Amino acid sequence: MTKTRAGSFFEDYSVGQLLLHSVPRTVTEGDRAVYTALYPTRFALASSDEFARACGLPRSPIEDIAAFHVVFGKTVPDVSLNAVANLGYAEGRFLAPVYPGDTLTAASEVIGLRETSNGKSGVVWVRTTGFNQTGEAVLTYCRWVMVRKRDVAAPAAQPPTVPALAPAVAVRDLMVPPSLDFTRYDFGLAGEPWRWADYTVGERIDHVDRVTIEEAEHMLATRLWQNTAKVHFDATFRDDGRRLIYGGHVISIARALSFNGLANAQVVAAINAGTHANPAYAGDTVGAWSEVLDKAETLAPGVGALRIRTVAVKAGAPAFARLDEAGKHLADVLLDLDYWVLVPM
Amino acid sequence: MTKTRAGSFFEDYSVGQLLLHSVPRTVTEGDRAVYTALYPTRFALASSDEFARACGLPRSPIEDIAAFHVVFGKTVPDVSLNAVANLGYAEGRFLAPVYPGDTLTAASEVIGLRETSNGKSGVVWVRTTGFNQTGEAVLTYCRWVMVRKRDVAAPAAQPPTVPALAPAVAVRDLMVPPSLDFTRYDFGLAGEPWRWADYTVGERIDHVDRVTIEEAEHMLATRLWQNTAKVHFDATFRDDGRRLIYGGHVISIARALSFNGLANAQVVAAINAGTHANPAYAGDTVGAWSEVLDKAETLAPGVGALRIRTVAVKAGAPAFARLDEAGKHLADVLLDLDYWVLVPM
Amino acid sequence: MTKTRAGSFFEDYSVGQLLLHSVPRTVTEGDRAVYTALYPTRFALASSDEFARACGLPRSPIEDIAAFHVVFGKTVPDVSLNAVANLGYAEGRFLAPVYPGDTLTAASEVIGLRETSNGKSGVVWVRTTGFNQTGEAVLTYCRWVMVRKRDVAAPAAQPPTVPALAPAVAVRDLMVPPSLDFTRYDFGLAGEPWRWADYTVGERIDHVDRVTIEEAEHMLATRLWQNTAKVHFDATFRDDGRRLIYGGHVISIARALSFNGLANAQVVAAINAGTHANPAYAGDTVGAWSEVLDKAETLAPGVGALRIRTVAVKAGAPAFARLDEAGKHLADVLLDLDYWVLVPM
Repeated sequence: MTKTRAGSFFEDYSVGQLLLHSVPRTVTEGDRAVYTALYPTRFALASSDEFARACGLPRSPIEDIAAFHVVFGKTVPDVSLNAVANLGYAEGRFLAPVYPGDTLTAASEVIGLRETSNGKSGVVWVRTTGFNQTGEAVLTYCRWVMVRKRDVAAPAAQPPTVPALAPAVAVRDLMVPPSLDFTRYDFGLAGEPWRWADYTVGERIDHVDRVTIEEAEHMLATRLWQNTAKVHFDATFRDDGRRLIYGGHVISIARALSFNGLANAQVVAAINAGTHANPAYAGDTVGAWSEVLDKAETLAPGVGALRIRTVAVKAGAPAFARLDEAGKHLADVLLDLDYWVLVPM
Repeated sequence: MTKTRAGSFFEDYSVGQLLLHSVPRTVTEGDRAVYTALYPTRFALASSDEFARACGLPRSPIEDIAAFHVVFGKTVPDVSLNAVANLGYAEGRFLAPVYPGDTLTAASEVIGLRETSNGKSGVVWVRTTGFNQTGEAVLTYCRWVMVRKRDVAAPAAQPPTVPALAPAVAVRDLMVPPSLDFTRYDFGLAGEPWRWADYTVGERIDHVDRVTIEEAEHMLATRLWQNTAKVHFDATFRDDGRRLIYGGHVISIARALSFNGLANAQVVAAINAGTHANPAYAGDTVGAWSEVLDKAETLAPGVGALRIRTVAVKAGAPAFARLDEAGKHLADVLLDLDYWVLVPM
Repeated sequence: MTKTRAGSFFEDYSVGQLLLHSVPRTVTEGDRAVYTALYPTRFALASSDEFARACGLPRSPIEDIAAFHVVFGKTVPDVSLNAVANLGYAEGRFLAPVYPGDTLTAASEVIGLRETSNGKSGVVWVRTTGFNQTGEAVLTYCRWVMVRKRDVAAPAAQPPTVPALAPAVAVRDLMVPPSLDFTRYDFGLAGEPWRWADYTVGERIDHVDRVTIEEAEHMLATRLWQNTAKVHFDATFRDDGRRLIYGGHVISIARALSFNGLANAQVVAAINAGTHANPAYAGDTVGAWSEVLDKAETLAPGVGALRIRTVAVKAGAPAFARLDEAGKHLADVLLDLDYWVLVPM
């Protein structure tokens, strides 16, 4: 009997099934440094212990998106090793900052299943939660992936279950780190003067900077999160000899590029929705633009919330274009991410 | 008089000579992060402080093979700067875990010398030992390299001395980290259910995953260990303009790939033998398979030992093929490594 | 109104203007590990806590040049985002070691302005100082860059001011880390036997080793320092599709290569002058040679100073060639750096 994992197929999942993901991971200052080398990130809260302390935190947390990657990576062997496509995210909430030294584990519950119309694969919905070493939940999100069937001829074993997912995380569900306090926020150190009141719903920002992706970089990133999906690493896996770039790599690039115009978006509080609209490959040059979708106040001192859509696009894409007339993403759009950030009031 | 080192030649070595290698190196969480980014490694003991503590260790040690690379790197300026080939390893024993914060030094003794038949070079055998800051030996191994002669016309100055090296490290010589205890081992967190009893001698495992090597990655890895051999870094050094990949890079790739099927092989206890059968270059896609060569019990609670042969091959190599009819390694074989690992009983 | 920064233009600067740079940065062991992976660096003081303690320091500081990069990176958005060229450095002094855990900030004063003769751009001189979390200055240097004018038709608003910069940092201005003591220096561990007395003014050293530059590597390096200049990252930015390599990447390569012959140059105490003579691109293979320009004693126990010129060149450049007959740098010269180092007496 083989000892290796071939990953699960659509038939292996059942609604309500609990998946306890393996390989706990202690996150360190080393991970932060590699992350900084991989992305042009400059958010002050995740860059400086001193800045973080001035904002009421005990020290600088790692980037929220980096914590997301660690948790996501744990789920790959159990959820998406045989995935045809990573279809979307919803109901993502960041529940507690992750600090260097924290050890993260992850678990998922299968919350939905639906066979595709051609019968060759099915969509699996999971709700994943990451925990630190004290058992505290640090983040949770739903994602759904298209997974191959082991036996394409077999009929669907279960009636379809499609979970009802919120179109956005409600403002009352945004978790602000307990001691976060932006009342003495230093805009000069943070890099931009724009506070919550300066952003208006509907406003759009072109983040100006762009970065060209290298094979070595996306593989370093993907391995850092112990994400094992073959398609990212093995140039012989696909017929075209191309390595598909982990969608999270593009999320981190877009988040880092968004600094230019959103430098004060120090905390990612929620992911409302996310789509990897088109695959990215080495050699692509990536830019990003954002739109302010909504604004809200929080109870925390000096802390406001902005709902942002950030769109990562290939260089040369027309400004602020996202969907075609049929409502489908344009070919130049790589990522369409709808999320809440916390900014100083 | 020149102040730079051109490296030693065959004539510079004598049996019994002691080489104290330079540049002590403090190993940190940063090194662990870079290692994780370079290799698809997921062994829980080297990934999580919490998991390591549950196994009786004070915290998560760095990967045994990473400690090997640090020590190996120290020896390069004194042993292999003018090496034509790194011929083999034997009698490798890991004597104590290395933790972030430890400072490693290394020393070697020349234990054998033999001029090659054509008189242009010679084989140098050394026994190398790495030490931590308390003077405790952390690992030891023998390797032999083919080194150029300074003067190919000069006769051999010494009679040949070929050391008698054990074909494998004896079970009684396997060092188990003092406090290691696998009696409460969490197979779910580790990623696979297979324990010592599940492996049978002769069993073979195809590790499934593969990774394509990039120039930037093997150079980052090789520099991380302060390994200075020109042939890895300088595209103008060889006539064919190719940079030869440090053999240790392939060892770490193979070890990381072996997770899929050997996820519970948490500790590398010994290296019985190792051969870099063919050179690797950027662009090669590397896979690996393993064979269980032997099994043994240890006195440590819940800790068993497996003797494993892991073979790294280029993508497309026939399954489990290693030697040709003449007993020589096939052209697709990059690494043939025979080693002992510690697994839960 | 746009929220993104397009960077400043020549007209935006005035002599005496103070620029407080954003994004404080906590430096960690992770940064040291990434730096070690990026450059073939082996200076023992920045490699080993034990070695550093034996030299009187509390622990191993990060490489002086790495601290320089962190401070330099902070200045880019305010000084050189619209720079046409980074023209030179002078009066650079390293004032205090930077240790992992230190948080660095930076500020610059505009000390000179002069419009170029064609009226399209102007030269801006700044004096930049980096500070740690206690407010202590850790390093200071002057640099001058050519910056585009916003309106090339506008006349110069101010009379030209060209600062008088010292041709070299005076020996009395070299700052030796307070507790540094080389009287028990271990030359064996450091890697070379050469002490201060072994170096003679006029002596030249070919550093032998070379390294070929990859796109992934220079971008990882440049991002690590949060340097955001588009020209390094965006293959679509220049008409020729090439990404210009951050000059500091070449400085670090040259400093690391200089180990072979200058292994005991443990501390960089000053930068007298520096020129990025020609642009570097991925694929270039870089070597280096040095010349001893001057020698001086210091009051610190066992600590001498050498003034060194290190020249980074492309592979194939003639030995020790630097300037043409007209006194201009040869096309193969990438970097010409004049600096003071501290070595054991």
